[in-house]
Amino acid sequence: MEKMKLKMLYSDMRSDLDLIEKELEIAVNSSSDLLNEASLHLLHAGGKRIRPVFVLLAAKFGHYQIELIKHVAVPLELIHMASLVHDDVIDDSEMRRGQPTVKAQWNNRVAMYTGDFIFARALEYITNIQNPKAHQILSYTMVEICVGEIIQIEDKFKLDQRLQDYFRRIKRKTALLIASSCQLGAVVSGADEKTANHLKRFGYYVGMSFQIIDDILDITSTDKELGKPAGSDLIQGNITLPILFLKDSPEFRADLEYALTGNMTEDERLALVKRIRESDAIEKSKAISNRYLQKALKEIDALPASLAKKSLRDIALYMGKRKF
Amino acid sequence: MEKMKLKMLYSDMRSDLDLIEKELEIAVNSSSDLLNEASLHLLHAGGKRIRPVFVLLAAKFGHYQIELIKHVAVPLELIHMASLVHDDVIDDSEMRRGQPTVKAQWNNRVAMYTGDFIFARALEYITNIQNPKAHQILSYTMVEICVGEIIQIEDKFKLDQRLQDYFRRIKRKTALLIASSCQLGAVVSGADEKTANHLKRFGYYVGMSFQIIDDILDITSTDKELGKPAGSDLIQGNITLPILFLKDSPEFRADLEYALTGNMTEDERLALVKRIRESDAIEKSKAISNRYLQKALKEIDALPASLAKKSLRDIALYMGKRKF
Repeated sequence: MEKMKLKMLYSDMRSDLDLIEKELEIAVNSSSDLLNEASLHLLHAGGKRIRPVFVLLAAKFGHYQIELIKHVAVPLELIHMASLVHDDVIDDSEMRRGQPTVKAQWNNRVAMYTGDFIFARALEYITNIQNPKAHQILSYTMVEICVGEIIQIEDKFKLDQRLQDYFRRIKRKTALLIASSCQLGAVVSGADEKTANHLKRFGYYVGMSFQIIDDILDITSTDKELGKPAGSDLIQGNITLPILFLKDSPEFRADLEYALTGNMTEDERLALVKRIRESDAIEKSKAISNRYLQKALKEIDALPASLAKKSLRDIALYMGKRKF
Repeated sequence: MEKMKLKMLYSDMRSDLDLIEKELEIAVNSSSDLLNEASLHLLHAGGKRIRPVFVLLAAKFGHYQIELIKHVAVPLELIHMASLVHDDVIDDSEMRRGQPTVKAQWNNRVAMYTGDFIFARALEYITNIQNPKAHQILSYTMVEICVGEIIQIEDKFKLDQRLQDYFRRIKRKTALLIASSCQLGAVVSGADEKTANHLKRFGYYVGMSFQIIDDILDITSTDKELGKPAGSDLIQGNITLPILFLKDSPEFRADLEYALTGNMTEDERLALVKRIRESDAIEKSKAISNRYLQKALKEIDALPASLAKKSLRDIALYMGKRKF
């Protein structure tokens, strides 16, 4: 039922989202066949376009003009796409959403400059924006995402890290971009500052909640549902919340350390993933994700009732409960 | 003699350049051993720190404060360094200045994220700058360099391109960053707008002249002087000015096309490089570089006489005549 709600919600915005989709296709177009192929591969690999959706919904709290807000929705999605291609190089990922990654289909070199290219196109697109506040938010977001990529590299394969390190990472990896999407939609459409700040914090909490769910799903979903091996995060050295809950447990410590060596067989991987699924780390992580979700919903409580407000609530609830 | 002048000139700025050098080392420091090693490898591979030198000299036309101008000198050099590492991946370069490149010493993956890391650090550094005009110039410069990297990829291996395409490329690859270095030094130290614009154009013309010389030297220098094979540009598919002068010549056309296939033997490469050296393309290219140099010198003619003015002139003349 929740899924149906989401579909209806998207259908309300269908024509504007189609416009964004076309703009994205134009944005990644170039005179290089290889770049086109790699960029379109990435674009068509899908994704829920959740960032543009948040920009559009947040814009409804001001004076909604698609021709204005597309100037932030498009670069935000481009920045997200660019960071995904570089992440796949960093994580040495072969698959994403059931499709071979750019680095797997071509190589690291092509993935590097496809990411650089899409990032450059995002920067180009941003030069169309006149609003100085919007510029400032976008620059800040880009800095934080770039810096976040590096923090992620630095924290890799370190089992002994604090929850705080994990939260800092997912903040930069996910929450900030969603927070900025909400904030920018509001700012560009001239919503008042208080509303923009509520939406920004809503996006931040939603993003934190989403990423924790994502990290849980990496363990609880099947390989088929994920479109990549379950437990990929751990194998790639990305220490997520459920792992942090288990790292000091005598039953798990040695196995987690062994998993990080990269020497696990397929059977060992499946067995370890199964044991983690059955541990209390999953429920503990879900509880934290849910706490962020509640904080998100509280932020928009203060906003006047509207279809957009209801939609934000529906998306947040749907994403908070999704199975894969 | 010219070289001695340059040494003296640098010695005047030694303590401030040392400070920049230390800041660069701090800027590329991180908690990741691999990132540190790769970044320091790159930092110590040298380079003439020409961008900081231009920032410092331009700043002397205003109220010179090293603590202020270092905030632009450091990120400008970092942006330059980051673009070099990614360029080496794009060009598949094994050697740079007689040293193995990051991608050769490690691999494309490490080169990608070392470049991303250094770029992120440049962005972080920039957040220290309060001056909005300086921010704007730096953002614009970064966009153009990112876009330039892509144009360079798109133009690769295309023999049939116009001089205009070449000039557009080297503008983004080199001239813009030097123009911005000069302009930013002036702007941050509060020089008047007219002076800042003269310095910006000086930097632009100097940059164009430098890059043409660089492209000539890729052909006229020995492998040993270059620290990489002579004719590398052509073999990597980068079409430079001398090549554009020869592409329609019946004596050269077939050989140039063959060179671009990447199938040339070492002997064939040396023979082709020798023939290009002996052609009139070198003199024609030098003449164009010299025309840019003269335009550069004319820009600073209008500025009041000072030691800084003389130094800018000396560097421009030295770089315009350098042998490798």
